[in-house]
This record gives sequence, structure tokens and C-alpha cells, in this order.
Amino acid sequence: MRTIEEAQQLIASHCGRFDPVTVTLADALGLVLADDVSSDLDLPPYSKALMDGYAIRAQDLVGGRAELAIAGEIVAGQAPWPDDRVISPGQAVRIMTGAPMPPGADAVVMIERTTTGSGRVAIREERVRPGQNVMGRGAEVSRGQVVLRTGSRLRPPEIGLLAAVGQSRVAVRPRPRVAIISTGNEIVEAHESPSPGQIRNSNGSMIVALVTRAGATPQYLGIARDTTDDLKRRATQGLEADILILSGGVSAGDLDLVPGVLRELGVREVFHKVDLKPGKPVWFGVVESPEVPSTLNAQPSTLVFGLPGNPVSVIVCFELFVRPAIRQILGLTPAVSPLVTATLSEDKNYRSDRPTYWPARLEFGDAGCSVRPVAWLGSPDLRATTEANGFIFFPPGDHKLRAGDSVQVLACDW
Amino acid sequence: MRTIEEAQQLIASHCGRFDPVTVTLADALGLVLADDVSSDLDLPPYSKALMDGYAIRAQDLVGGRAELAIAGEIVAGQAPWPDDRVISPGQAVRIMTGAPMPPGADAVVMIERTTTGSGRVAIREERVRPGQNVMGRGAEVSRGQVVLRTGSRLRPPEIGLLAAVGQSRVAVRPRPRVAIISTGNEIVEAHESPSPGQIRNSNGSMIVALVTRAGATPQYLGIARDTTDDLKRRATQGLEADILILSGGVSAGDLDLVPGVLRELGVREVFHKVDLKPGKPVWFGVVESPEVPSTLNAQPSTLVFGLPGNPVSVIVCFELFVRPAIRQILGLTPAVSPLVTATLSEDKNYRSDRPTYWPARLEFGDAGCSVRPVAWLGSPDLRATTEANGFIFFPPGDHKLRAGDSVQVLACDW
Repeated sequence: MRTIEEAQQLIASHCGRFDPVTVTLADALGLVLADDVSSDLDLPPYSKALMDGYAIRAQDLVGGRAELAIAGEIVAGQAPWPDDRVISPGQAVRIMTGAPMPPGADAVVMIERTTTGSGRVAIREERVRPGQNVMGRGAEVSRGQVVLRTGSRLRPPEIGLLAAVGQSRVAVRPRPRVAIISTGNEIVEAHESPSPGQIRNSNGSMIVALVTRAGATPQYLGIARDTTDDLKRRATQGLEADILILSGGVSAGDLDLVPGVLRELGVREVFHKVDLKPGKPVWFGVVESPEVPSTLNAQPSTLVFGLPGNPVSVIVCFELFVRPAIRQILGLTPAVSPLVTATLSEDKNYRSDRPTYWPARLEFGDAGCSVRPVAWLGSPDLRATTEANGFIFFPPGDHKLRAGDSVQVLACDW
Repeated sequence: MRTIEEAQQLIASHCGRFDPVTVTLADALGLVLADDVSSDLDLPPYSKALMDGYAIRAQDLVGGRAELAIAGEIVAGQAPWPDDRVISPGQAVRIMTGAPMPPGADAVVMIERTTTGSGRVAIREERVRPGQNVMGRGAEVSRGQVVLRTGSRLRPPEIGLLAAVGQSRVAVRPRPRVAIISTGNEIVEAHESPSPGQIRNSNGSMIVALVTRAGATPQYLGIARDTTDDLKRRATQGLEADILILSGGVSAGDLDLVPGVLRELGVREVFHKVDLKPGKPVWFGVVESPEVPSTLNAQPSTLVFGLPGNPVSVIVCFELFVRPAIRQILGLTPAVSPLVTATLSEDKNYRSDRPTYWPARLEFGDAGCSVRPVAWLGSPDLRATTEANGFIFFPPGDHKLRAGDSVQVLACDW
């Protein structure tokens, strides 16, 4: 039986890098850059006005005041002011926000501080410095500058910046494809009415949702019955994905066929069972790709997770083991999110012989994080878990915790 | 000129409820329930074993010990133990995790505490209480119980629970469709090379990304040139969506045609300009639907946002005004996310005549939140904003803030 940390390290050691893929900006949101990105131009490409007003020469003003001749008008999106028409001493040019500055001018006086009449503008400012209300050419980004580095996660500002520097397609780490199989003779789908002894398949839809939220692409392959043939057929299809998740069939019970069938399909067991509650029977293996040399960018082996059948065990094992694998393939760091320290908001006694994750409600307030364990009946009790947004970690032992004590929490940002 | 709060209240008063839509569980992730959901069965549907072991009668044990006759075996997913085969005193039944308990048995002894031989099982436990390692019928959910209420956000555990109680399709608040138009003669698309005086369209892709992250469905309608005809043509198409966002063309400049064109198209101006930096020229209007009576569930008017053209103004106005509208339509509460209190990690002097949002890096640690303002050149400076994950709010005035001071931060969870 492995510790949680050993299991996580074993998984990490099998999440080889996937080859980058090139996607459009519309598909890049949330993904991670696989290359540094440089700008092909200066931003702004010309010195530009940051206000509507008059472009002037700061030295023409005395104590913020002057009366200048209006030499023309510049509007954003029109052809720029000709380079040879340098603003002469005593001249001003009407300018719009975002428009290129005329040569010779070095500041903009906002329109509210001016009065115009008879081709002249009177300026009444407190003080005008060179550069005032002007953004110099290349001040934001200079041509050739690396604007985003390998490993950057692409959020809306990054997407906008990539567009600005001409990157309409970018190299990113791929979204892993994740096949999902529920197992068990007693399982029927959500739209069916269970007969006595049957229960509905909550794990299938839930794992699809967990995979989606983790940024991977789910493919649900249905319910495998507890026969070698049916399991083999569906698992063979699932092994075409980057990750295969099965739920159920990994305990020590007689019908728990999953580990045996996976071995027959050439999946090498890396570990079976982790010192953990809920989720102890979790199974992990890999299909090695012998034809691919083990270089940095080689397509890695398929990762196979056999999760226990109870839904809360599924959630805990997904968060502890599957999500870090997906994050590592996506290039997100850290792959394993650190636990959050929070203050218990009520007393809690707990005794366990295994490290335990207990569903809990985490609240972020101005005073930091507080956490309340929810009333929970054990690993089949999914309803209680809908009140939770995380899990308190209890080390093994006999715990008599009091309100105000610090605990560690696995936060689930669903 | 409106205050930020006035503007938010005016927007909220125009976000009427949309009619609920019915979607499959696969499409329900992240959406909000439009009805209470009850269970059509008990969960578990039968008293079930929580361990692999022997189902026994707790009263048969003395000091946790007994030697019992093995009366049979029950496996999860097989037909349940017949109701008329009640376990008699002195009998035990081999049982697997998740399997239905046989009538008469009231506890499970885990397999590790037993020894079997010659059709008998010897039990060596410390203490066995009735109900031990058993989850009673209906203990998680009883038939008819409301398991999720109107307004619940559907995360993975809720999706799993909905499947468990037979809800393969659910009524949710719809995702608003959001049309997006960039405006300006000086704008070219990301794949084009700008001529002198031109810049690339960062706002289009960025607003698509912001809308996606906010949970709505974006539809990008391209760049409208600064002509009444082109603007009118694209805006007419955009008004078929639930929300129309334009960027650029709302300042006081001569070519800022957006408000006039929208008025011609029957969009009623609700406000123009907010006391805010960056983002002061923001415009908001609505197309009323006169044929629809103003009932609670009526399809509301189309909401139209005219955002300023500079990309950081776009982000700030999106976060302050558009995101709350999307959240309200989606049924997410609160629509306007409260500011986060954080500790400045360095000194910062700032002077402003308007309430100002300054890009900043927020870090959540065990000691609470700290925030660092990023070096920022103003509303066109998107590159600086890629270092940020929020905006420090500076009220108007002259600020000489010191490291350790508390500030309010608009957190952006992209």
C-alpha cells in the first residue's frame, strides 16, 4: 500500500510531455504556451495621445499657459500626420485619444483645459511636462521583445495581447483526451429506473464533469458489465485515449475484475491501493509505447486510473491523482495543488487509521479561511458532498479538534 | 456621469429573468437550477454493506466475538437476498461492499477481523454495534426529498447526484448569447500586418475569452468601420443576441458614432459615462421588447454595452458591468462580486480625480491576501495586465499608501 505522496510521485513520473499543438486564439483559452512569444512590432506602433485634446510642445507653455495656432487635426484610424509636417513653435494640433502624435509635439493638453476660437487655442493648465498624456512608441512592448513565456497560462488578457502582436495561432500544450467507463452489474443509467438491488450511474456523468472542469476532453464509454469480455471490449476502446478512467471493480471482491483485465490488455500496474480514506482501492497503471523512444517530447504511455465505485471515493481520488496528471499534461504548475490552511468553525472529533479526507465547506473572508465539516455518512454519501467545496485532511489518529484549530484543506474549485 | 454603483444598479434593473431551458447533464455543468429537484427513490435504495466482510446480528456477539454458521453470500449487482430468508440467530452471510444487507442482519464485520473454515466464520472484533459498517436505506436521501434547490450551481457532485436521482435532464437558467463587435477604422485583425497608423484588434478575441470565462456563449461579428452603414449593419445582427458588446467608438471624438447609431436602431440609452478610470466613456442601453409583457419570466430586452476602445478599459468595464449582467441572467449570486480586502506588499503613491482600478497581482497565502500593483502605463497597456489577476481600487484623492496598508481589490478569477 502506497502513501498519497508516493502515489502522486509515481503518477507524475509517468506523465511524459505531450507534443505541442497549434490552435487558434479562440481555442487557446485556459491552455499553456509551449513556446516563448515575441512581438513583431512596437506597441504602441507610434507615440499616441492618451486624451482628447491638443498635441503641443511643452516648452511653448509658460506656467501651464499659452495661446497657440491650430495647425490641423489628427483622428485615430486616419493616415498618420505626415512625417515632414513637424509642429513648429507656437503651433498645436487637435488630437483624439489613440491617435498618433505629430512630430515635434511632446505632450497633450486635455480638451477640458482649452478654449478655441479663430484658429487659435488658449491653454490653461497647471503644469505640462514633456510626455504628458502621451504613450511613447514601444512603451508597452518593443519589437522583438518576448511578451509571454513558455508556461504562461492563456487568460483573456494574454489572448488579447497575442492578438495585438499578430499571433492568431499559438503553440500550446494539448488538452488530454480522457475516456471514462463505469463498471458494475448493479449500475443503470440516469434515465432508467433501477430494479431492486440496482443503483443509478452517478459516476459516469460526474467524472465527465470533473474532467471537463480540469480542462481535459472527456469521452464517456458507458457501463461495462462484470464480465471479462465486456470490460475488455470497452477498455480496449478507452486505451486509445491519453487517459482512461474506470470507476468500480478495483476492490478485493470476487467480481472486481478490472485489474486483471487491464493486465491482459498490456496495462502495467504501477500501484494498487493507497493509504487513504475514502479511496483506498485506487489502481494506477500505464500502457508503455515501446515503439516511441523516451525523448522529452515523445508521446507518453496511456495512463489508466481504476477508481473505487463509491462516488465520494471517485471525487477524492480524482482530485488527488487524476487532476494532477491532467494539470501536468496541460503544463499547469504546480500539478498537485497545495492544501489550504483554514480555521475550524466548529468542534470535530474524528478517529481514523488512515489519512482521511472529510467533505467540508471552505469560506474565504477578510480574516482568512474558515472551514466547517459537513455531516457525512461515508463514501457513498454524495448528497452531503454537494454542501462541500473541499475536504479537510485528517492524519491517522484520534482527533479531538476544537473550533479555532488550524486544519489543512483540499480546496475544490469547481 | 453615473457612479459605478448607480451604473451597476441600472444594469441589474434591466436583467429580467430569462425563461428556463431544459438541458442534458452533460450540458448542465456550471449552470444554475431553475427548479427544486426531488429524489424518486431512497438512497441507498436498500440497506447496504460499507465493507467487505460478514453480515451478522450484533446481538449474536459477546465482547465482539462469536463463531457463526455461513448461510450464504451476497455480491453487489446480483439479485438481492430474498426477503423471506431472514438471517437466523447464529448465522452470518458473506457480503461485499455495496451489496444489500440480508433481512435480520444489522451489522457488518470487516473481513480482516474474521477467520473461516468448514462453513463457519470466527469473529474477533473489539465491539460490534447495530448499524456498524451499514448504511441504512434512505440514509443519504429519502424518496421525495428535495435534494437540490432552485438556484443551486451545478458542479460535479451535483451532476452526480442528479444522475443518482434519475434526472438525466434538468431545467436551468440559460447561457446568454453575447454578440461582439470591434469598431474603428484603425483596427486590423490579428493575422494582418498593420499599416502605419493602424493597430491590431486585441479586443475582439479578448472579449470572446472574457464572455466564455463568464459562462456565456460568444459570437464574434468582426470589425465595424467608422461609418453609419457598416455599424448599423453589424449592430442589427448583434441585436439578435441577448447581449451586444461593442468596443470603441463611445468617446467624445468626432468619429465615435456608436451611441448615435444605436439610438437609430431603437436602443434606448440608459447611461453614458461613469465616474471611473479606466472606462469613463462606457455606454449602456436596452432594446425594449414592447410585445412581451413585463412578467417575471418574460424574455427581457437586449442589453447593449458600448465599451471604450482601450483594452484595459474593456477589461475593467467588462468585470464591473458586463460580468454582473451575465451572472444575473445565469442565476449566479451575488451578481456583483464583492471586493477582496488585501494587504499592500509595497508602497504605492497614487493621485486620481476618479475612482480608479489599477492592475495588480493578488496572492492568497496562509496569512490572508496580499497584493502588489504592477507597473502600468495606462488603459492601452495590456501587457502589464498579463502580470495581474485583479485591480486595486483607489478612491478619488491623493494616496500615499505604505506596504502593510489594507486596500480593496477586484479579483479576476480567469
